[in-house]
Amino acid sequence: MGEDIETQLSSLTDLAMEAKDLVIERTGGEISGIIVDEEKKAEAEITRVDIKNEAAGAKLGKKPGNYITIQSDFFRQSDKQIHEKLSGVIAEEIKAIINFEPKNNPDNDKTILVIGLGNWNATPDALGPEVIHHLLVTRHLYDSAPIENRAGMRSVAALSPGVLGLTGIETAEIIKGVVEKISPDLIIAVDALAANDSKKLAATVQISDTGIYPGSGVGKQRTGITEEDMGVPVLAVGIPTVINSVHLIDETVKHLAQENNLLQKSERFNEIEYQKLINDTLAPFSGDLVVTPKGIDKLIKDTSKIVAGGINIALHPDIKVEDVSLYLQ
Amino acid sequence: MGEDIETQLSSLTDLAMEAKDLVIERTGGEISGIIVDEEKKAEAEITRVDIKNEAAGAKLGKKPGNYITIQSDFFRQSDKQIHEKLSGVIAEEIKAIINFEPKNNPDNDKTILVIGLGNWNATPDALGPEVIHHLLVTRHLYDSAPIENRAGMRSVAALSPGVLGLTGIETAEIIKGVVEKISPDLIIAVDALAANDSKKLAATVQISDTGIYPGSGVGKQRTGITEEDMGVPVLAVGIPTVINSVHLIDETVKHLAQENNLLQKSERFNEIEYQKLINDTLAPFSGDLVVTPKGIDKLIKDTSKIVAGGINIALHPDIKVEDVSLYLQ
Amino acid sequence: MGEDIETQLSSLTDLAMEAKDLVIERTGGEISGIIVDEEKKAEAEITRVDIKNEAAGAKLGKKPGNYITIQSDFFRQSDKQIHEKLSGVIAEEIKAIINFEPKNNPDNDKTILVIGLGNWNATPDALGPEVIHHLLVTRHLYDSAPIENRAGMRSVAALSPGVLGLTGIETAEIIKGVVEKISPDLIIAVDALAANDSKKLAATVQISDTGIYPGSGVGKQRTGITEEDMGVPVLAVGIPTVINSVHLIDETVKHLAQENNLLQKSERFNEIEYQKLINDTLAPFSGDLVVTPKGIDKLIKDTSKIVAGGINIALHPDIKVEDVSLYLQ
Amino acid sequence: MGEDIETQLSSLTDLAMEAKDLVIERTGGEISGIIVDEEKKAEAEITRVDIKNEAAGAKLGKKPGNYITIQSDFFRQSDKQIHEKLSGVIAEEIKAIINFEPKNNPDNDKTILVIGLGNWNATPDALGPEVIHHLLVTRHLYDSAPIENRAGMRSVAALSPGVLGLTGIETAEIIKGVVEKISPDLIIAVDALAANDSKKLAATVQISDTGIYPGSGVGKQRTGITEEDMGVPVLAVGIPTVINSVHLIDETVKHLAQENNLLQKSERFNEIEYQKLINDTLAPFSGDLVVTPKGIDKLIKDTSKIVAGGINIALHPDIKVEDVSLYLQ
Repeated sequence: MGEDIETQLSSLTDLAMEAKDLVIERTGGEISGIIVDEEKKAEAEITRVDIKNEAAGAKLGKKPGNYITIQSDFFRQSDKQIHEKLSGVIAEEIKAIINFEPKNNPDNDKTILVIGLGNWNATPDALGPEVIHHLLVTRHLYDSAPIENRAGMRSVAALSPGVLGLTGIETAEIIKGVVEKISPDLIIAVDALAANDSKKLAATVQISDTGIYPGSGVGKQRTGITEEDMGVPVLAVGIPTVINSVHLIDETVKHLAQENNLLQKSERFNEIEYQKLINDTLAPFSGDLVVTPKGIDKLIKDTSKIVAGGINIALHPDIKVEDVSLYLQ
Repeated sequence: MGEDIETQLSSLTDLAMEAKDLVIERTGGEISGIIVDEEKKAEAEITRVDIKNEAAGAKLGKKPGNYITIQSDFFRQSDKQIHEKLSGVIAEEIKAIINFEPKNNPDNDKTILVIGLGNWNATPDALGPEVIHHLLVTRHLYDSAPIENRAGMRSVAALSPGVLGLTGIETAEIIKGVVEKISPDLIIAVDALAANDSKKLAATVQISDTGIYPGSGVGKQRTGITEEDMGVPVLAVGIPTVINSVHLIDETVKHLAQENNLLQKSERFNEIEYQKLINDTLAPFSGDLVVTPKGIDKLIKDTSKIVAGGINIALHPDIKVEDVSLYLQ
Repeated sequence: MGEDIETQLSSLTDLAMEAKDLVIERTGGEISGIIVDEEKKAEAEITRVDIKNEAAGAKLGKKPGNYITIQSDFFRQSDKQIHEKLSGVIAEEIKAIINFEPKNNPDNDKTILVIGLGNWNATPDALGPEVIHHLLVTRHLYDSAPIENRAGMRSVAALSPGVLGLTGIETAEIIKGVVEKISPDLIIAVDALAANDSKKLAATVQISDTGIYPGSGVGKQRTGITEEDMGVPVLAVGIPTVINSVHLIDETVKHLAQENNLLQKSERFNEIEYQKLINDTLAPFSGDLVVTPKGIDKLIKDTSKIVAGGINIALHPDIKVEDVSLYLQ
Repeated sequence: MGEDIETQLSSLTDLAMEAKDLVIERTGGEISGIIVDEEKKAEAEITRVDIKNEAAGAKLGKKPGNYITIQSDFFRQSDKQIHEKLSGVIAEEIKAIINFEPKNNPDNDKTILVIGLGNWNATPDALGPEVIHHLLVTRHLYDSAPIENRAGMRSVAALSPGVLGLTGIETAEIIKGVVEKISPDLIIAVDALAANDSKKLAATVQISDTGIYPGSGVGKQRTGITEEDMGVPVLAVGIPTVINSVHLIDETVKHLAQENNLLQKSERFNEIEYQKLINDTLAPFSGDLVVTPKGIDKLIKDTSKIVAGGINIALHPDIKVEDVSLYLQ
């Protein structure tokens, strides 16, 4: 396989952690300009990938910035008590990135706009709107709240803008318009992501300070929900819910090559043949076929609550991990 | 009853036609500055109320401008063939107001933003979002469409912004933000309305060039979706789906007064007593109780299709009345 | 007003407690065959009406049996911690009625079928389906669960059968068919109710061992979800979400009569005049107009969680009041 | 690859037509006991597979009976006028199978129960409930309809029973219970199917007189919605919306083997290695990962209307192809 296909394939994942692993797998060593930190907690493993510069980012097909991955099989289990703890882990990582000062001045504080990206009509793409559904929204109550209450809460607005096919408007246009009206101090953009590895489906949260391009992981490139475009810091929070089917084919090819000593043969398996394989197998959808778990509705429901809980804890000082279920809408 | 209560009561209807009738009923004659025109068609009766100036508007509690009411019991019947014709009637009235030139220049034409006001979670308030659900949205396809097709369609975007309680953001803020990004030539704002007369529930469409205040008919006054606020002409299209319960009480009081010769007695029925009656009967909700038909889900479903069809025909030259069902999403 | 209208009006409420009050108001004293017990708890007032026989039931327009009303303004407030306690209160009353033996034999235990009556498309009527949405359903997991777990849970199935207009099938037919297949030991039927008093809207839970007639409170009489019809004990759990608009008119008439010394005059206000008043005010819907709070979506969401929590606690020994939010789906 | 894997793979498709092709591909010739008929229409190609006996069925992993496949890329295009024609094609095939006598006796006619199988919360599995959503339901109106109207319509009931995970009750139990109550003359069961070939996704309707096993194509075997189990003829109507991801891997393996002359090598690629490939690539979901188009929401929406229209035309003599959009709910 040529480099071009490799590059194309590495763009199939939204996870910086996977992109990094792909590069390491290919080049066999460290990547300069990328710092990786791993931490093991009781409920989850945390991987922090810090892409220091554009050059390093180019290798991974990701923008420079911090990418934090929280991984745990508990996301996919039905144990709600551990789900609360996972919300706590997510909240810790969000708090560390946004680094808000303590809320000792109730009059003069941050407004946060949480955006639920994705299509509420297509379950695997509905994570963003579902998180908004469960989120505690306070901005409209904030000014009328007694001053002593305001210390325990922050002003949170929320919007699920819908997708281009439903509105005829680019998602980023809608968000930019709203941002200019309500001037938030921070945007948190929640979206369903694409991964390369099925083990990560509905078992991983990626938090990043680089913003997000709606639908980027699945091939579309549009205006970004980024600090550059929005004029406001953007935190992207996502959970992989699909694998691009092209990746599944690629994985199979790789597996066969390794297992059956076909590595040498693969020289003959060139780009044209590769494209033919993809066309034959995926026509007429090509890259527009995604792989998703049958029980995706339950997974979206559970993980959207975990993420909404994590955001609630991170933003509102009064919400404690052990009470997080109480505040889910 | 004092004048104050009368004024309060006339504000319970969103229909200019009803506000006009209330004033005539009370004053017993013509109202200067208001021109009324009535037309009878096979499927519907059309009443056009033209409020010429602020003074006349003040009497009706409505902004100066044109208010067109299309009334027909067929809205509430299940005959889909007549529903198509009602879409045609609505389209004629919209076209007459917006007065777009023929689409002979496919390159340089209007963009229309259709807004679905109201709360998709509360059926009687869900008309706006339901109309958006059935509407043909084309803006994202427009530029890539072949030039010969563009003559038959216009560029239509659509948004259901949700309500303050869900987003923490005033509806008008969201819309204004989007308007500044996509610069439409016209806004059409669709909303569920309040009427005074149950005969008008789900049997009347009001079209107005004065814009709309989200939730105005039921007591809340917020920033408007008006040309003044948006910088773009605004057409408001609404269907009454509720009656304020205060009005129902008032109607009963009036009826008793007339029928039982209690008219003289009513002098003793003063404002304080009136307020007590409302409080006793409606506490703790007071004006926040609405009267709505049990079968409101079916009525919203049917009328939202009729309105979406009417807007589709009015905006897209290629959509004919007899094909309108074909284009409902 | 004649007795006939009184009878008609008392049938407008689904609450035995209100029907009892109406009769006492009219007759001015005790009703033989009806035992009323009242209890005040920190979070709620509980009224237990025991209708001992058919004769007493006929006076109230209710079937003989136990009707328990839990009333609290906290239902309508946003305090989730008190909502948990209300779930606990509901659970206590359910447990007292169903009186299941302790679950010391995990192999041989009860199956409960919870039915969500009502129309998911019409918010004020959607309480039943919403409760099912939040309910913990276990029947399909029960047999495969380890025996030590089974002691803490019971086998619960759930169904929202939809309404006649959507299925073309009487709700009771669907339920009866399913009951004959899965042979539950108990049916719990949840439904939105009609009340006479706005103070009770979304602030009252009625639990009764008499079963329920779908849509009975709002005029329709169909086959019942009753022990007689189903061959299995039926617990009905409901929350009033609407008032029939006829009742609102009646309340206004009564109020005027009392306040303005019109009591004597009311002799002249006969049945025919009364019917004319209703027709004039409510045409063409007549009794098919209901009064409901504007914020019904929020009230349905909150109270459906409280009821689902109450049922969860009552049925599953392992679910404690303080953890109830954790188990809401 | 061993025969066992082949059998396992052929069970991954719900389409008899694909199962037949798989067998022919492997055995290289005709299959005794199977009659195939192909017809080309303007809008679609029709393939009729008649499996004559159990022996032939065993080869295909399908029950004996008639399987009709209507295939057309127009299903996936936005042309509503051709969608109407596709409804007409579907109606013709349904009518040919059910073979109802003309409705000359309005008093004594058939009742049809249409079942929407699948999970309304998971878009790729929501075809059945969506078809029910658009279907014309008449059973509750039938007896009260004037006799002259009854000649043009039939009595149709409809139910979306939900899935085991939501109700705790096997789908077949619910249906069987309802069937015993309302005694329909025919059941039409609509479900989302699994295919092997992406070209068939949302581009193929299979109609079969053999009934259906909920979830069969994706691995689960439960009680059937079949004439045998229900005591009533069952027509199954389905559209493939997913491919099992195991199939995608298999397709890739086959492709590589053919293209790269690895056919001989594949002898070394045994069952154990094959299972390892599947495990490595799909863990922890294994066969519970499905491949589906990104735009599945639009495809489900369009095809569910086409199917509902087809059933409407087939059942109600008064509904003509050119009016079919008019009757979609």
